[in-house]
Amino acid sequence: MKKIITISREFGAGGAKIGKAVAERLGYYYMDKDMIIKSAMESSSITADEFSKWDEKVPHNFGFGQSLFDFYNKPLNEKLFEAQKEAIKKVAEKGNCVIVGRNANVVLKEFDAALHVFITSSTYWKLQNLKGLMPEVSEEKILNQMKSIDKARAKYCSYYTDTEFGKAEFYDLCLKSSDLGIEKCVDIICDIAK
Amino acid sequence: MKKIITISREFGAGGAKIGKAVAERLGYYYMDKDMIIKSAMESSSITADEFSKWDEKVPHNFGFGQSLFDFYNKPLNEKLFEAQKEAIKKVAEKGNCVIVGRNANVVLKEFDAALHVFITSSTYWKLQNLKGLMPEVSEEKILNQMKSIDKARAKYCSYYTDTEFGKAEFYDLCLKSSDLGIEKCVDIICDIAK
Repeated sequence: MKKIITISREFGAGGAKIGKAVAERLGYYYMDKDMIIKSAMESSSITADEFSKWDEKVPHNFGFGQSLFDFYNKPLNEKLFEAQKEAIKKVAEKGNCVIVGRNANVVLKEFDAALHVFITSSTYWKLQNLKGLMPEVSEEKILNQMKSIDKARAKYCSYYTDTEFGKAEFYDLCLKSSDLGIEKCVDIICDIAK
Repeated sequence: MKKIITISREFGAGGAKIGKAVAERLGYYYMDKDMIIKSAMESSSITADEFSKWDEKVPHNFGFGQSLFDFYNKPLNEKLFEAQKEAIKKVAEKGNCVIVGRNANVVLKEFDAALHVFITSSTYWKLQNLKGLMPEVSEEKILNQMKSIDKARAKYCSYYTDTEFGKAEFYDLCLKSSDLGIEKCVDIICDIAK
């Protein structure tokens, strides 16, 4: 029985939808990025402004010149990451939960009875999915957003953890929603969890 | 209904065992690396010696100095890769098959009704598994072999395809055999294939 399910996902691949459906079917508590941030803010001294400024970012020089590391901003970044980590752990300790985003698979890697899932999808499918969710935005803008959000997630992942975003070895299960369908993804996750 | 199942795998993760069990349960034809090579040799002028020399290798300078590319050996490498590609396609065209190894997921990416699977596993599990299969070999040697074979596979993959070994986006389904167990992996694949 898997008491904790974490879902990491590409932008637009349907990870949140799958996570919500899994939580509903199993009667589990659902926690997404916004709820993690809210909980982290409540238990720390970080302001909403600071959060929006640093959310899912890494110090400017990361990947270009570690020696030029932005020491001024580092403490706030770390504080932000730590606060989110604590928020995730607090929920995981109670069990029976689905947690979407924020490298919860790495934060909870020492927890037993956890199932770590990654949701990927073809670019075409993600584009259609996102067009349905934001019909007023142009295809070009959506494609750019897809690229930049996943790039930020990958950077955030490799900066704060010793893992790589979307690499199979760091998850128990990776599913391509565009090929399997949302419903089948939910079925597979629930079946393994039981 | 998935008529073609390809399985890519880390060394020692149980990919061949899973593939064989899936083929047996679904009544599919099973083709592994050795059978691909045999078929490729039969339909080409490549000798067994040439095969063993170049198998799962890339030209020496790959990744170090593309400009120093080993032109002399390139044709044989390409010929070897092409012959294996044709062998994989020949089997896939008949359908109802499980193909393990040799980047079959990329070779067959245009084929409909294909399910592309990657099998990963914890290092500890792979070591235990391989110790069972080759009890006379020391742990150290097995660990070195694991590292070098997967490194060669990753290099072979990125040299001959525009994909990355073990990255979720290039497969429909990635399973961690050490967490899910061989039997569950077989169940999930067969369930999706049906």
